[in-house]
Amino acid sequence: MDDRDMDHGHSAAVAWEAGKPLVIEEVEVAPPQKNEVRLKILFTSLCHTDVYFWEAKGQTPLFPRIFGHEAGGIVESVGEGVTDLQPGDHVLPVFTGECKECPHCHSEESNMCDLLRINTDRGVMINDGQSRFSIKGKPIYHFVGTSTFSEYTVTHVGCVAKINPAAPLDKVCVLSCGISTGFGATVNVAKPKKGQSVAIFGLGAVGLAAAEGARVSGASRIIGVDLNPSRFNEAKKFGVTEFVNPKDYDKPVQQVIADMTNGGVDRSVECTGSVQAMISAFECVHDGWGVAVLVGVPNKDDAFKTHPMNLLNERTLKGTFFGNYKPRSDLPSVVEKYMNKELEVEKFITHTVPFSEINKAFDLMLAGESIRCIIRMDG
Amino acid sequence: MDDRDMDHGHSAAVAWEAGKPLVIEEVEVAPPQKNEVRLKILFTSLCHTDVYFWEAKGQTPLFPRIFGHEAGGIVESVGEGVTDLQPGDHVLPVFTGECKECPHCHSEESNMCDLLRINTDRGVMINDGQSRFSIKGKPIYHFVGTSTFSEYTVTHVGCVAKINPAAPLDKVCVLSCGISTGFGATVNVAKPKKGQSVAIFGLGAVGLAAAEGARVSGASRIIGVDLNPSRFNEAKKFGVTEFVNPKDYDKPVQQVIADMTNGGVDRSVECTGSVQAMISAFECVHDGWGVAVLVGVPNKDDAFKTHPMNLLNERTLKGTFFGNYKPRSDLPSVVEKYMNKELEVEKFITHTVPFSEINKAFDLMLAGESIRCIIRMDG
Repeated sequence: MDDRDMDHGHSAAVAWEAGKPLVIEEVEVAPPQKNEVRLKILFTSLCHTDVYFWEAKGQTPLFPRIFGHEAGGIVESVGEGVTDLQPGDHVLPVFTGECKECPHCHSEESNMCDLLRINTDRGVMINDGQSRFSIKGKPIYHFVGTSTFSEYTVTHVGCVAKINPAAPLDKVCVLSCGISTGFGATVNVAKPKKGQSVAIFGLGAVGLAAAEGARVSGASRIIGVDLNPSRFNEAKKFGVTEFVNPKDYDKPVQQVIADMTNGGVDRSVECTGSVQAMISAFECVHDGWGVAVLVGVPNKDDAFKTHPMNLLNERTLKGTFFGNYKPRSDLPSVVEKYMNKELEVEKFITHTVPFSEINKAFDLMLAGESIRCIIRMDG
Repeated sequence: MDDRDMDHGHSAAVAWEAGKPLVIEEVEVAPPQKNEVRLKILFTSLCHTDVYFWEAKGQTPLFPRIFGHEAGGIVESVGEGVTDLQPGDHVLPVFTGECKECPHCHSEESNMCDLLRINTDRGVMINDGQSRFSIKGKPIYHFVGTSTFSEYTVTHVGCVAKINPAAPLDKVCVLSCGISTGFGATVNVAKPKKGQSVAIFGLGAVGLAAAEGARVSGASRIIGVDLNPSRFNEAKKFGVTEFVNPKDYDKPVQQVIADMTNGGVDRSVECTGSVQAMISAFECVHDGWGVAVLVGVPNKDDAFKTHPMNLLNERTLKGTFFGNYKPRSDLPSVVEKYMNKELEVEKFITHTVPFSEINKAFDLMLAGESIRCIIRMDG
């Protein structure tokens, strides 16, 4: 395929208004500019973050927009200065990037690239402040630099991980956001030792991936905490051994967990974004060595509040973003964990729909029925 | 010396009432019981914690009491079951202990022994719930299991570190509390890498020891934060390179530090116990990799409060107790750091008084004139 073919227009699911069903439209996708690549998306999946910004209840709405950020595809063409990638490479686009030049990229500990860190307000490319999508000359906004609900998309080269071409893209596409976020929170940040106990707050896709990380780490007890008891059966597949519904107790859930574990769990991972759950997740870890890791994104006006003695008693509180993975440097190794059958990706994929039925993926997520729904771009 | 000699009574500085000068009295010191040792104290020093409980403004008063917990001495006799120590051993008594049998002692990460963790309310020995000190049959209470303002004292064997007999006790006695607390907070918990920047909140003895830890770690910038500008000159000796007085600015000190350091320091260590300083110490570390360590002990009703995004942006918040050193296992190695001239202890010792003038040590500390005042028990 060359640039002329692209001029015909290709299908994309456009969100014209907040909360309204996406409409499949013929969209023109401009060629990649300097440090950009154009990707043919083969599979994408729906993540809560897409739904959150599509509903646009908590932020400045930016429409019309093409959502989508969990996906797998193939490089179609590359712009000026791109040497790391070439047409045909199998890739995962990522909602945050790695420029490899800023202090964060130079740090061994950070993945919060100064240039390409997630920006949910920006609907255009960094290079020229313009969109690469248009319908009859009218621009359509990008979303987190990926916009994968489109047969073709343009991303910054720093937001693309080149992966093993043998990896099935219809499976590993889910590793480009939520699953890696939860899995990495446990294996890279909480780092439970073999035989330790881990509490997971929130048993959605990210929390289940955090549980999967605990299972892979050899945790002896994995305590799942959720307000929805229907999630426990599913969670067992991800290694969750015990279930706590805070609604079932008259005492705070941190006390329930401390009572179950002789003073507290060794590690906890908070995946809901509720500030009360964050406080519970912190206060339920054992003094002396407990580590609590925050993953869920809070509301703008939340305050995390605890008695400082909970810290002085040698607890550790950390936050993480995208599981502390650097997108380009580290994501290929997560794909390899799937290829080695260490990380089980299939169990996260509960549904598949053709692109023409993308709105069904939204319905399934809103109904709480899916963990991950794959959207096949060829359908 | 044998037990008969002890019956004569020996000098101890007794606090009869809260806030009143100590009185040197002839005190009988009973023999050590099971798992106890009796020590001849040669040098002791005064720490803020002694003053805090002597003033007894924030707690239940417990008098008459023998304070003192930073000291060096020699084992005089040992009780039943004590095999690790024998008369003549050079030791540092410690206000917290290490039983070597509980989950905390078995953990590589914790030093918060279940049995012997600091207990400021207990004025008696664990073994029988009695005091070993008496004046004409009337018991005098212990303090944090050490009571080193006494020529002889009895401690649990788990609260005694056996050290290199070549180490001068008039110097290394200060390592049994504050200096190790601050030094360990930096080297064991904050762990700055060579060339990183470190902010130290509070330039008292503990904060200066934290700065000394940063200096030894090869920090490139050590920013001292204190409300008292007279402390800066002294602090330079401990490696502090820059000084920030929060009173000099209209903006929060965390913002001042972020502006000085292109987004935040790499590490911070909070040594004041002010909850506002704790919040500032946390919020002044760089996103992506910053680590804040809390050392200072807060008030009972304080609340640590921050926006959870400060955590999500990959900052780490940890608390520490006694610099994460296990008293018996690790303190001997801190003494060796002094012997190797890595850790400079002399500069912490600003004054020396004979035991008969112990109240001068209190005056000097209350006036903010001393860092550490050594009390010579032979004087």
